[in-house]
Amino acid sequence: MNTRIKNVLDRSEADEILISDPLAIYYLINRKFSPGERFLGLLIKKDMRPKLFLNILFPCEEIDGVDIVSINDTDILTDVLSDHIDPDSILGVDKTLQARFLLPMQEAKLARKFINGSLAVDKTRAIKDEEEKQLMRKSSKINDEAMAIFKTLVRDDISEKQVADQLLDIYRSLGAEGFSFEPIIAFGKNAADPHHMPDDTKLKYGDVVLIDVGCTYKGYCSDMTRTFFYKKGPNKDQEKIYNLVRKANEDAQRYVKEGVRLCDIDKTARDVISDGGYGRYFSHRLGHFIGIEDHEYGDVSSAFKYKCETGNIFSIEPGIYDPETMGCRIEDLVIVTEDGCEVLNSYPHDIEIIG
Amino acid sequence: MNTRIKNVLDRSEADEILISDPLAIYYLINRKFSPGERFLGLLIKKDMRPKLFLNILFPCEEIDGVDIVSINDTDILTDVLSDHIDPDSILGVDKTLQARFLLPMQEAKLARKFINGSLAVDKTRAIKDEEEKQLMRKSSKINDEAMAIFKTLVRDDISEKQVADQLLDIYRSLGAEGFSFEPIIAFGKNAADPHHMPDDTKLKYGDVVLIDVGCTYKGYCSDMTRTFFYKKGPNKDQEKIYNLVRKANEDAQRYVKEGVRLCDIDKTARDVISDGGYGRYFSHRLGHFIGIEDHEYGDVSSAFKYKCETGNIFSIEPGIYDPETMGCRIEDLVIVTEDGCEVLNSYPHDIEIIG
Repeated sequence: MNTRIKNVLDRSEADEILISDPLAIYYLINRKFSPGERFLGLLIKKDMRPKLFLNILFPCEEIDGVDIVSINDTDILTDVLSDHIDPDSILGVDKTLQARFLLPMQEAKLARKFINGSLAVDKTRAIKDEEEKQLMRKSSKINDEAMAIFKTLVRDDISEKQVADQLLDIYRSLGAEGFSFEPIIAFGKNAADPHHMPDDTKLKYGDVVLIDVGCTYKGYCSDMTRTFFYKKGPNKDQEKIYNLVRKANEDAQRYVKEGVRLCDIDKTARDVISDGGYGRYFSHRLGHFIGIEDHEYGDVSSAFKYKCETGNIFSIEPGIYDPETMGCRIEDLVIVTEDGCEVLNSYPHDIEIIG
Repeated sequence: MNTRIKNVLDRSEADEILISDPLAIYYLINRKFSPGERFLGLLIKKDMRPKLFLNILFPCEEIDGVDIVSINDTDILTDVLSDHIDPDSILGVDKTLQARFLLPMQEAKLARKFINGSLAVDKTRAIKDEEEKQLMRKSSKINDEAMAIFKTLVRDDISEKQVADQLLDIYRSLGAEGFSFEPIIAFGKNAADPHHMPDDTKLKYGDVVLIDVGCTYKGYCSDMTRTFFYKKGPNKDQEKIYNLVRKANEDAQRYVKEGVRLCDIDKTARDVISDGGYGRYFSHRLGHFIGIEDHEYGDVSSAFKYKCETGNIFSIEPGIYDPETMGCRIEDLVIVTEDGCEVLNSYPHDIEIIG
């Protein structure tokens, strides 16, 4: 049994856990499946080799330390599972397990009690091991290099979509597999909408250019935002907003270390922006955990009272979205360490005029 | 209460149905939401206006005939729902409802019994009304036009990915919103893998070029496959395979009408290919239902014994995947009518040399 599975079981209240999320399974046994509408499950319990329930349609070599239980489309899933799950157990099921699987399992009384077993996996995934840290560093390094290229794509009258459509090739040429999320490219007033998606808006002299992008490298995600000025520097109000967001980002990063509460990191950044008079324009949490998914369990928000642990990786992404003046966000990823944090992005925070 | 909702309730065994799939909700009330990890639900029952449980983060105008129940991130979901669901009812829940919602609902005893309530929705969706047929026709018409352009993109040494990367812009220029699924472009031997994804394989003189593509138009999906020959016609064996696949497609289309069984449509095509000696190389079902999703409930396969109904729309996509000779698939969408079917694709089935 590998360390990751052992850590999940140590954190769990369930006797057995049936994990169905393909990315959680990838994390635990390093095999990626896309089961579509078919069932996929990894059963783990103490003192038993993990069992992978796998449809024969998805060919798979042997997996070190894992028993594969083959299923096919004509099998009755609950019959297969009942040979392996103790009916007296408390069974943790994945939070994303769908009703079309869960209801028949309950009907067949596969376990004494069914509980949400995902938290043990999520909490384990929130602490990255050395191998994962290396991949996260590399993914963000590519993202830094990509940002330096992306900013050169702008020109008069190019649309947000036209910029966005060029990014994938650039990421691939730098060694990434693809996007970690759909890129956000926002010109001018669109930057004041934190969830803006690239559209046909054309770039004009003096626009703000907000670029929020990320790639995956060997499955691990990067995520970074920079806000540029097109051909003309900021006016006074814009400069004030930019510098507040920058200070919020940098003060929060300086505050991070093992043992501080995530809600207090959020507060550190939020206080900077509120004290500057823009509190109501910072309308989202400061950050989110990230790894093999761009949004993983764990928030940097007022609602998340847990303390940071060494190996947590999350985003620090304060923003001010003032429709009258500008939208601005500056985002980096950080790894929590014993006495601070390692910032994964090195692209500068300085005000930069592009084009 | 609109006709679609009424039809779902007429087909249902549950007293109340709580639908959580955003596309099913879109189908029923014509509003599209992307709730991400947040709960979204539409509660329907006889003699009650449908109720939409909607997080306040997703702003929404009034919806004709629907009551909106606002929820926010600090609400306890089961408390909100318990005001609206009869605890003595049999509650149909969506097949995709996740355990993190279903387990607390069961714990709170929101209903006497929980059953999979999706089939009533799925069966209703399987019969397209006039409005839907019009959109499906238009989506496939764009796909026909697109295919005529896509085939011109090929040249010596271009890679599958390089072709695939150009398709989205072409679809958009023709009025589509985007892909209905990731396009399959397969050169040479790759065409013999029915699930091949575009890679760096480069096109060579004499290659087969398989193009399996679809777009969405106002949310409705198209899906078509053609297999071309690059610069050089088929050899004898290839010609035999191509003509078998074509005959399988056309015989199946001629067989379709209201009342015939879907498994028998599959058999019609499969017999052609088996009689030609290539049965073991036709390794998938003949087709799938399609509408606002590219794969909807309903199969054209030996396992699906139901009879066709007027208004069903599905693919007819026989294929032969012989790694020694060629991979070939010819796919159209059809609408079932009383006395036959309407084929939505008009791009010819003839052997065509391109490049």
